[in-house]
This record gives sequence, structure tokens and C-alpha cells, in this order.
Amino acid sequence: MTAQITQAAPTHLTGDIVLGPHQYGKAENRVVRIYRETDRHEIRDVSVSTSLRGDFAAAHLQGDQSSVLPTDTQKQTVYAFAKQRGLESIESYGLELARHFVDDVEPVRCARIDVEEYAWARAQVNGREHDHTWIRQGQEVRTAAVTVEGTGDEQRTWVTAGLKDFTLLKSTGSAFSGFLVDEYTTLTPTEDRILATTLIAEWRYTTTDVDWEATYLGVRALFVERFAEVHSLALQQTLFEMGKAALEAYPMIAEVRLAAPNKHHFDYDLSPFGLDNPNEVFHADDRPYGLIQATVQRSDAPDAGPAWTRGAA
Amino acid sequence: MTAQITQAAPTHLTGDIVLGPHQYGKAENRVVRIYRETDRHEIRDVSVSTSLRGDFAAAHLQGDQSSVLPTDTQKQTVYAFAKQRGLESIESYGLELARHFVDDVEPVRCARIDVEEYAWARAQVNGREHDHTWIRQGQEVRTAAVTVEGTGDEQRTWVTAGLKDFTLLKSTGSAFSGFLVDEYTTLTPTEDRILATTLIAEWRYTTTDVDWEATYLGVRALFVERFAEVHSLALQQTLFEMGKAALEAYPMIAEVRLAAPNKHHFDYDLSPFGLDNPNEVFHADDRPYGLIQATVQRSDAPDAGPAWTRGAA
Amino acid sequence: MTAQITQAAPTHLTGDIVLGPHQYGKAENRVVRIYRETDRHEIRDVSVSTSLRGDFAAAHLQGDQSSVLPTDTQKQTVYAFAKQRGLESIESYGLELARHFVDDVEPVRCARIDVEEYAWARAQVNGREHDHTWIRQGQEVRTAAVTVEGTGDEQRTWVTAGLKDFTLLKSTGSAFSGFLVDEYTTLTPTEDRILATTLIAEWRYTTTDVDWEATYLGVRALFVERFAEVHSLALQQTLFEMGKAALEAYPMIAEVRLAAPNKHHFDYDLSPFGLDNPNEVFHADDRPYGLIQATVQRSDAPDAGPAWTRGAA
Amino acid sequence: MTAQITQAAPTHLTGDIVLGPHQYGKAENRVVRIYRETDRHEIRDVSVSTSLRGDFAAAHLQGDQSSVLPTDTQKQTVYAFAKQRGLESIESYGLELARHFVDDVEPVRCARIDVEEYAWARAQVNGREHDHTWIRQGQEVRTAAVTVEGTGDEQRTWVTAGLKDFTLLKSTGSAFSGFLVDEYTTLTPTEDRILATTLIAEWRYTTTDVDWEATYLGVRALFVERFAEVHSLALQQTLFEMGKAALEAYPMIAEVRLAAPNKHHFDYDLSPFGLDNPNEVFHADDRPYGLIQATVQRSDAPDAGPAWTRGAA
Repeated sequence: MTAQITQAAPTHLTGDIVLGPHQYGKAENRVVRIYRETDRHEIRDVSVSTSLRGDFAAAHLQGDQSSVLPTDTQKQTVYAFAKQRGLESIESYGLELARHFVDDVEPVRCARIDVEEYAWARAQVNGREHDHTWIRQGQEVRTAAVTVEGTGDEQRTWVTAGLKDFTLLKSTGSAFSGFLVDEYTTLTPTEDRILATTLIAEWRYTTTDVDWEATYLGVRALFVERFAEVHSLALQQTLFEMGKAALEAYPMIAEVRLAAPNKHHFDYDLSPFGLDNPNEVFHADDRPYGLIQATVQRSDAPDAGPAWTRGAA
Repeated sequence: MTAQITQAAPTHLTGDIVLGPHQYGKAENRVVRIYRETDRHEIRDVSVSTSLRGDFAAAHLQGDQSSVLPTDTQKQTVYAFAKQRGLESIESYGLELARHFVDDVEPVRCARIDVEEYAWARAQVNGREHDHTWIRQGQEVRTAAVTVEGTGDEQRTWVTAGLKDFTLLKSTGSAFSGFLVDEYTTLTPTEDRILATTLIAEWRYTTTDVDWEATYLGVRALFVERFAEVHSLALQQTLFEMGKAALEAYPMIAEVRLAAPNKHHFDYDLSPFGLDNPNEVFHADDRPYGLIQATVQRSDAPDAGPAWTRGAA
Repeated sequence: MTAQITQAAPTHLTGDIVLGPHQYGKAENRVVRIYRETDRHEIRDVSVSTSLRGDFAAAHLQGDQSSVLPTDTQKQTVYAFAKQRGLESIESYGLELARHFVDDVEPVRCARIDVEEYAWARAQVNGREHDHTWIRQGQEVRTAAVTVEGTGDEQRTWVTAGLKDFTLLKSTGSAFSGFLVDEYTTLTPTEDRILATTLIAEWRYTTTDVDWEATYLGVRALFVERFAEVHSLALQQTLFEMGKAALEAYPMIAEVRLAAPNKHHFDYDLSPFGLDNPNEVFHADDRPYGLIQATVQRSDAPDAGPAWTRGAA
Repeated sequence: MTAQITQAAPTHLTGDIVLGPHQYGKAENRVVRIYRETDRHEIRDVSVSTSLRGDFAAAHLQGDQSSVLPTDTQKQTVYAFAKQRGLESIESYGLELARHFVDDVEPVRCARIDVEEYAWARAQVNGREHDHTWIRQGQEVRTAAVTVEGTGDEQRTWVTAGLKDFTLLKSTGSAFSGFLVDEYTTLTPTEDRILATTLIAEWRYTTTDVDWEATYLGVRALFVERFAEVHSLALQQTLFEMGKAALEAYPMIAEVRLAAPNKHHFDYDLSPFGLDNPNEVFHADDRPYGLIQATVQRSDAPDAGPAWTRGAA
């Protein structure tokens, strides 16, 4: 453990200790918005997190809060905007919030709003959709992140949308063979296995002139279609095909980022009991799992700027 | 803290220290069973827990394992039976397993099998259901518990079925008023509120001559219908109506047990910002929550025996 | 699936549909109580759940709340009592709350209070314990449940105490061999393995004249001592020895209930890489796990009454 | 929603669809390593995740796995190295693994190893530390991330260390006042409140010539000391002081990144019951929470390179 990491850089630093990138906000505001103008109500169920960036050095260095809009105020704003500006789609709602913080709160130079949305399906009652009763749908969560930076003509905006906890499984049409072998390799190749994942995907828009609802549903449908229809030689290939399909269909999407655990389903060895098991009985293992991450992008994608910067840096 | 709990019973005991009720098994075997006789596959995704009861005192008192069928063996059996006996419904599969342990393993006097089932929906691809691709459905989990006791003519069997993590919400049609008031009561009555719960329900059958799939779906549909249609004066009332509907429709059900958190959605106070909020913007709170538990039963329900005994005692 | 469960009992019921056991309360009130009479503060961090039993049939059958003390009121009482009556130990605090609900709220016949306590250790600063700073300790949770039934001379009280999420591991001194073998048994016996568990234990007192803090710590220390010192021929044996030690030391304890997952640590097979692995490298598996449950009790233990009744029935 | 995000960049892209940044590996290998050379055993309990980067385009574009070392092989290597190379500290173990993948597996250009370590305390038995029995410590998790890029003279290495789930609370010595007020601000300033957080911190080393164990413990102790001793005018200030203390003490640390939820403890309003509550009874709320993120760094810190790049990009 004695090799230096870098030859050039000093390993014992003597420079001043300074504040680097920083941000603060209120996380996981759980807003439920009911639209009840008619007897047929609508519901939006979201978790909203705000992050404000700017020069908050005085708070860090001297404890001076005079430039700090409290996170409690950010919470109040989140709930107030759900009424004042509405919550038709999480992207438009995030845009309203982010612009407000940057435009109306002087020390804020950049605001990022993360929203998760939980889906509800209308209850079926006697074969008809109920007006004001819902059942929580799936584990799947829709996500959006809006970043607004600067004011006036300098203002720039980035929007990403996505989903997470989206679990897909196919019981055939997936292989894994022809892989690299080294001294630690014991895996047997297979031409037929279960492929299952709990997908996290996010895509970046080049504009805010988007039908947020239709595009979300369209991308999601393409993901499902590709996962099902591609004969998978590897999860890597499936992911690329999913991202590619989204980009082909939606020219206002610059890139798609995918992270997919390979949720292993192991053929259970029933041979000690004289039983054949041709891919019928599996043990679904928890850990470890493969984890494949890939970006699929347009070669002319504009710079991502802070679109993907979740934390302070 | 000086009052004795009971006048009659001794508070300092001198009797022998003995083994009381005990059981053991393998918990959370994650079995996935694919039926692939045709191109249109079927999937069953379950978590199976076994519990064996009998005279296992020697294991506890002397560490003598000669009567102890290893939990590893129970696991092997769980997977083997998914192939040998099949997994058409979790109740029938549980019955096969429970009977096997009681009938075929000498020291076992009673076996309880708990099964959870995770639902998958067929992927929609270009408007059609896909043959071998699914999306994990909901948070809702279907449950069953089978208890078999004794052998031969003495053998008795209990089956309960249920669901959990079943989240329902109605945005109107729920009130809470006219309640008891004491010196610690500050709550304001309301005639219109959100009612939301994540239901746990279990019902006990009087027979195994049941169409398990149809009955499960029927009970579930009745729960939804009652939750939606009953104008709720209290979650207590809604629960009773749900249990009653199941009993009315299915005479082979002896009792329904319901446990329902009252997941509070608080009207957010927007008045400091000059905004009216007529039940439109809510804060969904995590904790604390109300918790209502009730049994609805037939007056001629046979004795429950060990049907509800999950642990050793 | 055609065998009837019971020959004697009817499988299709025709009796009236009635309300069975029921209870309601407020769950998981997160109370933090600071004692700050001197500069050296003390902290109690608890989650409190209340459950009231009595004749609340009108609420279920007609939606009539006139006998229902709101769960919101129960919450207010929980916080008010943390100030008014104090929170020196979770058992004494639970007793105050349970007695209040039974004694002071007319329709309440029985109250059960469940408390979980989260431990904090004083921060060490420059070698000394800090007056008002703590670090959250462990995953271990201390528990207590108090049940009070009836009023006046008829009043009876039950107290159980316990712990959960208490994870213990020993790297030798544990075997598993000589077990029963059937056609599904493939397990190899072992004379040396890792034994690990995340213990849930609860014990029932025969009196309230107890030093709650000292007894809790004493029982916990005995559990640790027995787990470490007993050469374990099976987890069953270890559990029995743990329960026995508690009963021997504390004659006011009537019974100990233990539930212990056998958290499997599998020797990793390194032989394909020409490596020996004499119990040095293990894979800690998540699921499935063994689950051993046992009660150890005094032969002259008084009747448990509702001491262990967590839910409505 | 019609404003374009950027004036200059095209919003409808026509460029080729290409693979961007990508990586893959095996996540959450749960390795337990026992050192048993003497009767006094030692334990290391870790979760290891591997990520390999390089040119794996063929796998994504054509499903060609010939350059892909299976994630199963990565798992085997993780377990084998726990024996072959040992696991004295998570940083040194991570370095061994990362260097192996880059040096010995041809297509791998860069490897990142993330390790989490779970702490165990020796059981106290009759006042002495036990040789081979432990109790799982705390919720706190120690972390490390090692990134190795390139081979031979070009090889560069980055090591970060940290902790997470580290929960601290102080019951006084914290204020929040003098903050910015806007139209959505309703918060009341306070000069005395509970300050509590569950800290995530990571720091970056400039060298691998480090006593990993001593430095980890030293940084942790400084964090605790600063949290306790700084009279906090804001969590921002406390975080900066914590990072600064670590940098002052350890000149081989280039920067410290901190993310701290402000876990709100609200004074419970007991005034309706005629009770005063001078910071004695609190409600510990779950959500929302403040979230403060800050980097504290040396002005002469060398470039971070991929040190903080957890995912593919």
C-alpha cells in the first residue's frame, strides 16, 4: 500500500480549506392533489424534493442565515403551488417551482426539483370505473427532474423524465454465452434463461415543448416492447435496444440512461430427487445481482449541463 | 409501580423450567414456477414458509437432532413439490406440502405452510398480451396459510386466504364526527375527508372444496366495491361492511379478519398564503396512523383451532 | 381438493353475520423526551402504539362514533403523558397510559400499549461523555407491552418486555449433525459452523413491582452470555438455554418467548481456484432462513390471559 | 410550456444513435471473513460491488460477449480474494480487486470497487470480551470506493472512504434564526432546538500510503467532536466545521463531501392541555426533511478524476 496515487500531485496538501459545491432543500414532501371540479375526481400523488444552489457561503462559514430561504418555506411553496399552479404533470409542476425559486428568491442561482409520482388505478366497481376511489398501482414510480439556472435571457432549463422500480421478467428468449473466461470463471453458458430486472431509466429532453404525459407513456411502452421482443444475447443488448427505440421515436430526447440489475433466477437442482427441471422451477435470489448501466444517446446531443447533477457536485 | 398484577397468582415462581410451545421451519423460500407446456407461458411467483410442530424437546433440551428434519430439507421439499405437485394455486400447493410433512415425517404432528404470492401482469406489446413477458403488478400480495394436524382419520385441516399491502383511497364519501370527547381531544369533526388504507385481510374457509382462484378474486372485488360504495362514517364501518359482503357471498367462509391503518391525509393549511383549500391539497403523513382491527364472522362459525396460530403459541 | 376439512362442522354456514373481536388505536407515535433539569441531559426515544378494546359495535354496525375516543386523542394523550407522567422506563410509561384509558374513558374495557425504544449512546468527545450529544446505538430495539383490563378491584394488568433486531454471531462453537434424513435431505452434517441470528425475545412478568431497567439489562446480558458460552448442537438448544437462564435469574418472569432466524453463512466453495477454505470465507445469504420459535416457561406460570394478544383476537 | 430550453441547440435531433458511457459488475456480494489463526477470532463483514469499464460496445450493439467477463466471475473473484489477499481493511481489499481487474482482464480499462462494512462489537461475557462472539453494532456503515484506471506507468488510482447511516442528535446548542423571509415563509425562528441528522460523508485521499483504520477512526471522532462542540447556527455551519476539522487533521485528504438530512424534531404543542413544553417533548417526524449537502476542500486539491463517478457517467 505504498505506491502513490499520482506522481505529479502532492499527497500532503497545504492549501486553504474552502467551501466547495453546496446545495440545500426540503426532501420528500408528500403532496396529494385531488381535482374535484366534477364528480369524477382526479388524483396526483407525488413526493417532491427541492434543492437550491447559489452563494450560501455565509451560512456555512459564519452561520449567517440572511441569504437562506428556510427549507420550511420551500415546503410551504411546494404545497401552495400544488393549488396555485396545479399539478397536471410532474414536469410542468417542477418547472413552475424551479422557475419561482430562481426568479423570485434573490440568492438562488439554480434550482433543481425532483418529483416522484405514484400511480393509482381507478377502482372497478360492477364493471365500471369509480368516480372517486382508486387502488395503488404497482411498484413502478414515475420520476422527473427539472433544473433551472440563471435569470432573464440567461436562464437555461433542463428536464429529465424517467421511471424506477419497474420490474420486468421474461421466461424465455434470453441467453448468455460466448463470454470471456479467466481463471475465476466457473459459469456455464446458457441459451435459455429467465431475464428479470427492476429498471431505472431516465431520459433528457432538449425542450420543454413536450406533451409530458403522452411521451412518458410512449417511452414506457417502447421499453416494454423491446424487452419482450428482442431475443436477448445479454442484458446489455436489451438495454441498448430499449434506449435506441426511445430515441428513434422521440427526436426531442437527447439521451437515455439505463441502470438494470440482473435479478438472478437460478434453475433449482432437483436431480437429487430424480426430477428433471427444464427451466420450470427457479430460486429467485436476492443478492448479489448483476448491475448493467448504459447511456444511449444521439451523436448531436447538446451538452447535458447540470441536468444529471443530483447532489451538490 | 408497586401494585401487584394479580392478587391470586404468585409473583415469584419456583416451578420447574420447561419447554413450552415450539416450532421450526424454513422461511421465505422464493420459488418461481414457469409453466411452459405451450408457447404461452404461465408464471407463479411465491414466497413459502414452512413451520413444523411436534415433540422436538430433545433438540431443545439435549441438542439431540434425531427427530429434527433439517430446515434445509424443508427447503428442498418446497422446490421439489413446485415441480412434482405443481403450483396451480397457493392454497392447493400449501395443502400438498402440509400433508406431506405430517403424513410422511414421523415426528411431525402439525405443519403450517404460509405462502405469499406476487402478481405479474402480461406485458402488452402492440396491443396484445405477450406470451412470455410480464410486468410486476402492484404492491398487493396474496396470502394463504394452511395448517394440517394429525394423521389418518384424525387429520384436520385449516385454510385461510388473504391479501396484504392492498392500498385503497377514496377522495370523498368519508366522514368522521360525533365522536367521544375528553380532556385530550382537540380534533375537529369532518364530514368530508380522504379515506385511505393499506389493507391486511384474511378469511378462514370451512372446507378445502373451494375454487381458490375464483373465490380470491371474488372476495377482493367485494372489498373494493364496499370500500368505494359505502358512505363511510368511520373506517370501522367500512371494514365491517367489507367483511360482511364476503361472508354473504361465500357461505364456506367462517370469518374475515381485517386490519387497516388509517393513512392520514391532512388538508394542508394554505390560508397564510391567502389560498382556499377545499379538500384539494393534502399532506400524506407517514406516522402515526390509526389502526383499526376487526373480525366479522358467522354466528355458527366452527372453532378456529390453530388456523390463526402463526408462531409457536 | 375435495376432502372436507371437518366431518362434523358444516362447510356452508347460514348463521347471522356478527362483529367479532375488535380494537383500534394510534400506531407508531414517535415521541422523543429530553430530560434537561441539569446540563447533563437524558434522552428517551420511543415509538408508542395504543389499542383500545371494548364495545365499539355501534361504530362498526351503524357508524355511530359516540363511544369512540378518536385515535387523534390517543396521540395527544401519548405526548401529554410523556410530559405529565414522564418516561423513565417504557414499562412504567405504558402502565400509566393503559390505566388512564381504562380508568378514565368509559367505553374502554381493556387497553394495550406497545412501546419500542431506540437506544442512544452518549457521544465521546475528547475521552469524555458529552452532556447533550448522542449517537444512535445499534439496530437493537427494546420493547414492552402493557395490557390493563377492567376497573377497580377487578382490574388486571399484564406486562411483557423484550427486544428485537438483536443480531448475534459466533464464528465457532456451533454444530448441526445427527439430524433426521428423508428422501429430500441433501444437507451435509457439520461440527463447526457460524451461528448467527437476529433475535426477537419477549418475557412476561408476574408483577409490576420490578426494576424495569435493571431487569431488562440483566436478561439481555444472560442472553448474550448463553449464546456465547453454550456449545451449540442446534439453535433450538441455544434458545432454550437462553430462556432458562433468564427464568433462573428472575423468579418474577413466568415465561420467555423466543423467535430466532438462523441466518445462514455458507462456506464459500473456493476449490475451483485451488484454494482451501477452512471456515474463513462465507457468503451471508438473505433468504431463505431457518426460523426457530420456542417458549421456555415455569411449570407454575400463571395464565397468560391477553398478555400476548397483539391484535384484536 | 412552450419556451425552448436552449436557443442555440436543436430540439429535434437527427444524429446517429450511439452507445455512451457504460459499465457493469456484480453488486452486493455479502462476504464474511473470519480470521481464526488464534482462539481469538476476528471478523470482517462486508458488501462488495464491482464495476468494470472499458470498450464493451460489442455486447451492447451485437450481443457479442467475447470481451465480457461475467458478473458471476467477478463474484467468484471477490470471494477468492477475501482468502487469497485478505480483508484487513476495506480500502486495501478494494485496491487488490480493482488492480486485478484492470491488470489481468484485457478489455477492462477501469475498475471501481465499492465496499460497505458492517461493524460488530465483541460480546461482553462476565466482564470480558468474548473470543468468537459478536453483537452487530449500530446502524452506521463504513464505506470505501476504489477506482483504478489504466495499466503500467499510466495507471492512476483514487480512493475515497466514508460512512453512512450515522445518526447523531444534540438536544441543545443549535439555533435557526435570521433567515430570509418571503411570502411563503411562516417558520418561527428559534434559539434552541434539537439538531439531528443521519450523516453520509465521504472523503478523498491523495495517496494510498494511508493507515486506513486509524484515519477512518480519526475522521469519525472529529465529526462527532465538531457536531457536539460547535454551537450550531445552522446545520450548514456544523457540516462545514466537520469537514474542516478532518482536512486540518489529515493533509492527505483533498476534500470531504457531506450530505445531511435535517431530521426534524418538533416541539409538541401541549398548551391545549394546560402544559408547558420547554423543549422536553418532541415529535420525531419522518418526512419531509431538510437536506443539506456541502463539499469542504483544500484549495490545492488535485483533480478528482473519476473518484466520485459511481454510475456509468
